[in-house]
Order: sequence, then C-alpha cells, then structure tokens
Amino acid sequence: MTRGKKLINDPNDVVIECIKGLVETYPKLTYLDGFPEVKVVLRADVPQGSYDRVAVISGGGSGHEPAHAGYVGEGMLTAAICGDVFASPSVNAILAGIRAVTGPPGCLLIVKNYTGDRLNFGLAAEQAKAEGFKVQMVIVGDDCALPPPPRGPLGRRGLAGTLFVHKVAGAAATAGHNLPDVAAEARRVAGMVGTMGVALTVGTIPGQSASDRLGPGKMELGLGIHGEPGAVVADLRPVDSVVSLILKQILSPDSQYLPIKRGGRVGLMINSLGATPLMELMIAAGEAIAQLQLDHGMAVERVYTGSFMTSLDMAGMSLSVLKVDDSILDALDSPTQAPAWPAGVAGPRPPTTLPVALPIVPQHLNKAPSRPQELTSQGRKLEAAIQAGAMAVLNLQDSLNDWDSKVGDGDCGTTMSKGAKAVLQDMEKHYPLNDAAETVHQLGCSIRSVTGGTSGILYDIFCRAAYASLKENTTGTVSAIKWSVAFESGVAAVSRYGGASAGHRTLLDALIPASTALKERLAAQEDPVRAFIFAAKAAVAGAEATKSMPALAGRSSYVPAQVLATVPDPGAMAAAAWLMAAATAITQDLGIS
Amino acid sequence: MTRGKKLINDPNDVVIECIKGLVETYPKLTYLDGFPEVKVVLRADVPQGSYDRVAVISGGGSGHEPAHAGYVGEGMLTAAICGDVFASPSVNAILAGIRAVTGPPGCLLIVKNYTGDRLNFGLAAEQAKAEGFKVQMVIVGDDCALPPPPRGPLGRRGLAGTLFVHKVAGAAATAGHNLPDVAAEARRVAGMVGTMGVALTVGTIPGQSASDRLGPGKMELGLGIHGEPGAVVADLRPVDSVVSLILKQILSPDSQYLPIKRGGRVGLMINSLGATPLMELMIAAGEAIAQLQLDHGMAVERVYTGSFMTSLDMAGMSLSVLKVDDSILDALDSPTQAPAWPAGVAGPRPPTTLPVALPIVPQHLNKAPSRPQELTSQGRKLEAAIQAGAMAVLNLQDSLNDWDSKVGDGDCGTTMSKGAKAVLQDMEKHYPLNDAAETVHQLGCSIRSVTGGTSGILYDIFCRAAYASLKENTTGTVSAIKWSVAFESGVAAVSRYGGASAGHRTLLDALIPASTALKERLAAQEDPVRAFIFAAKAAVAGAEATKSMPALAGRSSYVPAQVLATVPDPGAMAAAAWLMAAATAITQDLGIS
Repeated sequence: MTRGKKLINDPNDVVIECIKGLVETYPKLTYLDGFPEVKVVLRADVPQGSYDRVAVISGGGSGHEPAHAGYVGEGMLTAAICGDVFASPSVNAILAGIRAVTGPPGCLLIVKNYTGDRLNFGLAAEQAKAEGFKVQMVIVGDDCALPPPPRGPLGRRGLAGTLFVHKVAGAAATAGHNLPDVAAEARRVAGMVGTMGVALTVGTIPGQSASDRLGPGKMELGLGIHGEPGAVVADLRPVDSVVSLILKQILSPDSQYLPIKRGGRVGLMINSLGATPLMELMIAAGEAIAQLQLDHGMAVERVYTGSFMTSLDMAGMSLSVLKVDDSILDALDSPTQAPAWPAGVAGPRPPTTLPVALPIVPQHLNKAPSRPQELTSQGRKLEAAIQAGAMAVLNLQDSLNDWDSKVGDGDCGTTMSKGAKAVLQDMEKHYPLNDAAETVHQLGCSIRSVTGGTSGILYDIFCRAAYASLKENTTGTVSAIKWSVAFESGVAAVSRYGGASAGHRTLLDALIPASTALKERLAAQEDPVRAFIFAAKAAVAGAEATKSMPALAGRSSYVPAQVLATVPDPGAMAAAAWLMAAATAITQDLGIS
Repeated sequence: MTRGKKLINDPNDVVIECIKGLVETYPKLTYLDGFPEVKVVLRADVPQGSYDRVAVISGGGSGHEPAHAGYVGEGMLTAAICGDVFASPSVNAILAGIRAVTGPPGCLLIVKNYTGDRLNFGLAAEQAKAEGFKVQMVIVGDDCALPPPPRGPLGRRGLAGTLFVHKVAGAAATAGHNLPDVAAEARRVAGMVGTMGVALTVGTIPGQSASDRLGPGKMELGLGIHGEPGAVVADLRPVDSVVSLILKQILSPDSQYLPIKRGGRVGLMINSLGATPLMELMIAAGEAIAQLQLDHGMAVERVYTGSFMTSLDMAGMSLSVLKVDDSILDALDSPTQAPAWPAGVAGPRPPTTLPVALPIVPQHLNKAPSRPQELTSQGRKLEAAIQAGAMAVLNLQDSLNDWDSKVGDGDCGTTMSKGAKAVLQDMEKHYPLNDAAETVHQLGCSIRSVTGGTSGILYDIFCRAAYASLKENTTGTVSAIKWSVAFESGVAAVSRYGGASAGHRTLLDALIPASTALKERLAAQEDPVRAFIFAAKAAVAGAEATKSMPALAGRSSYVPAQVLATVPDPGAMAAAAWLMAAATAITQDLGIS
C-alpha cells in the first residue's frame, strides 16, 4: 500500500499548521490567537464588535479544505470555525468566532447537518444571544443518498451544496440586508440544493493507516465526507454512467429532494473529494451538463468545477444541483474576495458551447508547387546539389546504422535514407527549383513527411528557417552571401529549438563549422564555390571530431565515454556527407575541380 | 491496488472531453474546431487576425491540469495548445493556435524545456514566421534536480515555475508592450525561478495500470511531471524536513540556479502534483515560508498554494522559488481573468503574520455567582424544585440504565446521574437562587460540565434558551406565564439544534406535551401550580407513549421495532421524572396536595 502517505509533521498539529500556512498564503485572512482549542480564521479587515454587516459564519470539522476557511473573504464568509479533523469545533471556539466578527447587525451561522455541529453551534448561538448578540442559524442537509423526509429528516448530511448557501448568504449580507432577510435567503437556497457523491478510495486520517474498504474496481455511491460508508457499493463504470446514476437520484421525481421540474434552471457543482484531479472533474462536468440538458430538460446556468469540499485524500467526486432564479444567480455572480470561490465562472453561459472555426491556412501554402518546365542556371545547380546530397546519404546508410548501433538506437541510416528517398522522389515532380526559397521549404517538408523522431523535425526546422531568411532577403537569383546568411539562420534555429550547441556531439558539430567557414571565406572575398567546398571540408572535420566529444544531448547522452571515443556522431557524419556531396556537385556543374 | 481508478470514459478521449468540460465551466473560453489533432483552448473574446496585443501562447502535453488551459484569460495566456496525455502537441495544432490569436503585434510562445515541445513549437514558430507572423519563443527550464549548466544545460525540465513566466509575460502583453519587450521580460523571469518536487506516488496514465514504483514509506525527490524517475528515492520524513531538503537544493550557493543571495526577495509556489490535498500544501507552505525567512534570510513577498501544474493523480508537491523585484511583483499582482490563477494572494504580505487577540469574554460571565445568604420566596421554590428533580433522576438511575441497555448504549442512567449530582453540589454554593434566569443558566452549565455526549449539550441548550427568554422578558419574580414562555423556548431550541420533533422517540416526547399543556392551562386561567402538575403528568404520559414510536433520531435509530415496543425512551422518562418531582415539590412547598 502506498496510499495514506502524507506530507505532514505531527498528525495532531495538522489543522493548526494548515491554518498558519493558509493565512500566510492569503494576506487578507488572519486567525484568532487561541490555539489549540480556538481555531478560527477570519477576515483581517473586520473590526471587532462594530462590523456594520451581518456576519456570516460557518465551520465544522477540518479535512475538507478549502472548506471552510478558504471561503472567508468579503462577499462570502466572515469567519470559519475549524474543528479537528472530522470533529466539530467546541462551543468555546464557536463563541470566540461569533464574538470576534459580530457587530450590531448580528450573525448568521451556516451549519452542516451533523449532530455534533448542530449542538455545538446551537449552544454557542444560545450563549451568544444571552451575551446580547443577534444570532440565527441555518442547517444545510443537501445529501440525496438518504431517504427524504419524513422517513429520514435528520439523516440528510451537509455536503458541498453548502457552499451555495455560503455564497448567497455572503452576497446578501454584503449588500446590507438585515439578519432575518439574510437567514431567509440562506434557508431558501438550502432548500433548493441536492448533492450526491461517488468515492473510488477512502481518505486516510492523518496518523492512521489507510483503509482499502472499497477494493479494486469498485466504487461507492452516496458516501459521506468523513469516510462514512456510502449507500451502495458497485463496480466502477465509465463516468457518463456514474454521472447518470447520480443525477437521476438527485433529480428523482419520487423523492423530490429539489422542487424542480423539466424546464427548470440550475447551477451545477462538480467537486473533487480530494485526490481526483481536475482532468477527471472536467470530463464529468461535460457529461453532467449534457445529461442535465438532454435527459432532464434543465437549463444549466452556471457550472463550478474544482476542489471545493474535500474529504482528505479521498478519490472521487460529488455533484450538486441547485435550482436557481435571477436573484440567486446575481448572488452567485457577485464579487467575493474569498480565495477558494472559483474565478471565471460568473455571467451567462452561451446556450450551447460552440467551438470557433479553425483559422484558414494561408492560400499560397495550399497550392501544391510543381517542377518548372525549364530550369534556370540556379535551378540546375540546386537540382544537382540536392540530388548529390541525397545520394550521399543513401550511400552512407550502412555506416550510419553501424555507428548509431554503438551510440544510439541503430536506425540513423535507415531514417535518413527514408528522407533522402522522399527528397529525390518529390523533387522530380514538385520542387519549384527556379525558386530557391520555396525549394528549400519543400526540402524540409519532404524530409519530415517520412522521417520520424528528432532528426526529421530538426531538418524541417533547418529548412524552414533558411527559407524564411531567403524569402526575406532575396528575389530572383540568390547571391552567395544570402545563401550563407540563410544557412546560418537554419543552423541557429536548430540550435535554438533543439537546445544543443557546438561540442554537444550532434549534427551541429558539422553544421556550425561549415556555417562559420562559409561566412569567413565569403567575407574574405573568396570565390563562392571554393568557399562552399571549404565549408564542406570544415563540416567533415567537425563531424570526425565528434569522436572526442562527450554527449550532452540527444541520442548518446547515456553511452559510456570509452565507447563514444571510437565512433563519430552519425547525425554529424550524415550532415557532412550531404554538404560535401552538394559542394562537389556544384563544382562539377561549373567545371571547377 | 485501489490506485489508478479513474472517473473517465474512453482513455483515448480524456483530453478532448476535458477541454469540453473546461469551456462549459468557463464561459470566457472556447476551443478550435479541430479535434482530435488540433486541441487548442483560447479566449473567446480575441478577434482572429486583429488582436491588438502580443498574444501569449503556451501548451504541451496534457495531464497537468489546470495547466495550461486554465491559465487562458485576459492578463495571462491568449491560447493553450494541448497535446495528448504527456505528449507534445503537433506542429499543425500549434500553428492553428498561433493563427487563431496572433494579430499584428505578434506572439510569444512559452515552452517548457522538453525536446518534443521545443521542436514542435520551434517548427511551428518558423512556419508561422514564414506566413508573416511575428513570433518569439522562450524556453523555461526551472528544474533544480538536475545539474546546472554547463554540464546539464539541456536537462533542466520545465516545471511549475513556468506559471510565473506565463503571468509576467501575460501582464506585459496586456499592458501593451511590444514583442521583444514581452519576450525579454519572460526570459528574465525564466532565469530567476527554480523548482523541485517530491512524489509519494506515481500518477497513472488513463488506460494503463497503476505503478507502485515508490513502495510504502518512500518518497522520490527531484521527479519530473511525466512519471520520470526522480533524482533520489528516500524514506518519507516529516514535511518540515522534506521542505528543508528541497529549499536547500533550489537555493544552493554552489549550483546557483537562482541569482540570489541572503536578503533577497522571493515569491513562493507550493504546487500539488495532483492527489495531495490542500491541507498538506498549506502545512508545507507554512514550513517553507518560515525556512525561507529564518534559514535562508529571504523576504517572502508572495505565496501561491494550490494545484497549478499537476501530473495526473500523482501524490506529492513541488516548490518553486522566484526571485522578485517591484516590476515582477506588479506583474504577478496585476488582474487576470485566467480561472486557475489563484485569488486573494496579491498585494504585500504583513512582514510577519500575527493572529488577532481572542475577543474578551463579557465581564459578567467571568464572575462566579454565589448562593445568596437569604432566599426569597421564589428562590426557596426554585431550590425545592431543583433538589427534587435531581433526586428523582438519581432514584431512576437503574431503570434508565436498564431501558437504555435495550435501546441504546446502556449508560443513560449513569450519565444523567452524574449531571444530577453536579447540580446538587453546585447549587449548594454557586446558584444565585433569587435570580431565576441566572440559576437556570447555571443549571445547564452544571449538567454539561460532567455529562458527555448529546444529552449534556441538549440540556445546556435547553437551559441557555430558557435563560435568554427569562432575561429578556422578566425582572424580579417570574410570572407563571413567563416560566411557560421560557420553557417553550428551551424546548424549541432542543428541537431546532437537536433536529428531532414530536414522535421521534426522544426527550422531546416528554418536554413537548408538558410545554403544550402548561401553555394551554395558563391560557385557560388555571392556577399555575395545578397547571404545572398537569404539565408534568402530560410529560409522563408522553414518555410512556414513546414505546409505540419508531426511532427516527438519536440512540435508538438502529434498534428493531419489536424491541422498541417493550421499552420507553429513557431520555423522555428521565425528563418526565424530574418534571413531575419538581412540580410535586412546589405543590408541597405551597401546601397544595
């Protein structure tokens, strides 16, 4: 069992340490100096005794983070009273919280329907009243796993739907409503929300060992948030089916948990129980929305997807459905400083979510180019160079595979040959050889279309950058200097995106010396063809020198140094080979030897 | 193994279904109509082709939710390109994203340092440039688990620190800076952030079986976010020690991952890797802040705690430290509509977090009351009634235990007797018997101080509510009507907070008939003492009648009906007994029989 491992210190201190980290994270929150018994998180900006709004207070056992302390902030809770893990806070702690934030307008206690919470908050409420505070209490029991009243009125637990009550009550209080009105609105919302959960694993209480009650392949429906057993254990199924079961139970016309019919308007909450990641919640959200609309005939007005009221590290989720009207939507949308209330969810949703059209590919990229009838002088040279380069790679196939079998995965020759063959084949029909830039572009496309892995994409990057340089700097015949600049920008792109530099035992150890030599020779007014030959020789020398280099990147990073010393980098050797062949071909084309 | 269970449908569809749920949740986001290859989430409000700000684009493999799509929104990313789980998106997908959101000012690609992402984003960048877009790319490698340059320049992976680059670049773009400036600021931030993670379990790829590579009691430090093995496997230790190891590595003066010294200013991110709940993150946050301040001499300017860049359902976390200056802080604090950027964290933090003082307990509650020297007529009656009621409960102890052993846990008599003894003992010295309200208050305190469980707190609630009623409505001698009102409000509080009503087989089945009878008789002008006797008789009848009631709440909910039918509810019997004894005592005191 690897479950149940936790990043904590003393299991007895988890709640106090959690609160300390929380107020350090959120500068607008603070806590009362009453540890360990009094664990109260409150707004740092509420003046003690003179707060001019109804204070909205909630709380309960800890282990449900971000509930409840994460919902403290203007527009939502004024204070959260935190018990130990899964244990109600004491009357003294609740009283301390009431005293700290309640001013003349009084306070509303929002309590989840658990006996301990009801009694402790209840007694604190009565004592606070005796001290002169105005206090009202609303109990939330949104659980739809247990029978509805009258058979099970006491059993309906408070679950994630409670957050809707927090939000609406907080909005009403912030708007300046009086205590009876805030309490009435909270009660109204509490009567219109239903929640049901599914668990895949049970959460582990800090300091205790992990339970594997559910076992492999099983799920539990209608669970509590304290590890209480659920209503039903069943085989795990696809989430669309799980969502369907849950929504049918919540919206059951027999049970009437919610006073809602087809055509009604709802808000939906998909809540992680702790260890279920956002990806799965989002998948469930998409399913639930579709089913609410199609199977239940509801208009889904708002969606809240995330970790809102968890159960330690339990894997699973709960779904809450809230019947909404315009006034509730306004309250849900109203701004709050509470850090854990979700962002980006306010405002009307488009009736159906439509993706936007794919942007159109630029026209000129869609025209398949074709080989010109007549080649210019430059076109002929380009054809000769490409032909020779590709043949050189084909000829080197076995050596490349042999080297690569010692320092890589042995397929360098095969892979490169595929690219070379594609080049030869495509050139015959499609390369617009009189247009140097577009031909270079097509060269990259040919190579990548058949060459998997890193080398195909690196050659495409090389060609694409050279193409962009040629396009930008040239028209008609390309000067030697422009070729040199294009070559250099191709090399730079390979280095930038591939991440390697000179000396890293990659194809750059052929390309960089060639680029440097070409540039230098041309700057020294050397004949362009001789400069190209010189550059190719530099590439060959560079490729041979890779034998003495460590492998810092790419295929050979994990090969021992003594093996590396006997073999050159095959990628560099291939690059040197096609460069040399191309240079030689141009020389021959011009009759230079 | 129960790990690896997931709430999904077809494992091949997880990314597409996740994106659909995401845009349903967040109405300001949309996606490109290019599934399955093109999976791009973008702002719904950015006009195609004419966006007047630098577009900030990021992305990479999926499985890191909320990264990256959750950071799309004004002020942060303009689009997120989503690959399959742990796989780089294709060049075509990236190009589609660039084309969809890039206007004349161009776009910045922010790419985590993985070969696949570098190459695919790189090639897309080159192609987009060839199409006429201005494009720059910034590569983020914030990983501090691998050696720093020059030995390992390529190996430093992009981790959660990338989010700081997203945020700062997004703020610069929104402020209207040009592409070179936005890119420069992004590069500057990328050079000042370091991240290291610890894993407790490995995440499970959808459709694959769970790995238990780490085993029980082990943790892995310096892991990747794709299940790559970490740098070190070690025994799990308390989180303060884990945090210490990680911070020392990130801030190592030898490695110099960050250009920072003692006295520096930092931002801190504590990031869940997927299955570690917020409670543990908050504990780690508190530790990390303290250590940064005390052990490393840093000023912690901002803290971000949550799930930001996860690795499916991996348990564990990463810590990121960012060197900040005023300009970076402004950018981090600037508003954004991106739903997953944390709320409530902007603005300066107090230099040290101080809790606020506990609110003072009202003066009059601290004065221990004392028994008056002389009793008034009312004081004598009260004493006689309390004495008789307490004795009746003591006399009933064995019967109560006997009944409770059949329908509860068998200690009702013992528990109630404890309370009765405490009442008798406290009354002798502390009950201010001439003050009826305060005496009733003390009665509740005595009972709760020694009576555990539900009954102690319910009696305290009863007395507290009656006290508040007496306080509010009476001065000096309490009229029978006022007693009746106080009794009724005590009963109502027990029902409200305890959650039971008439017929639920609880003590309310004695108290409610008594309260009703008392009120009715007084309203009919009956002699108060006779009315009290009548009420007590109603309580006894009500308690006896519990035999025929089902148990809907409290101790007997799980007892079979045939057993229940032989036994009355012990709580109701106790209440009837003390009521009858008290009424009788008052009758005797007045010489009525």
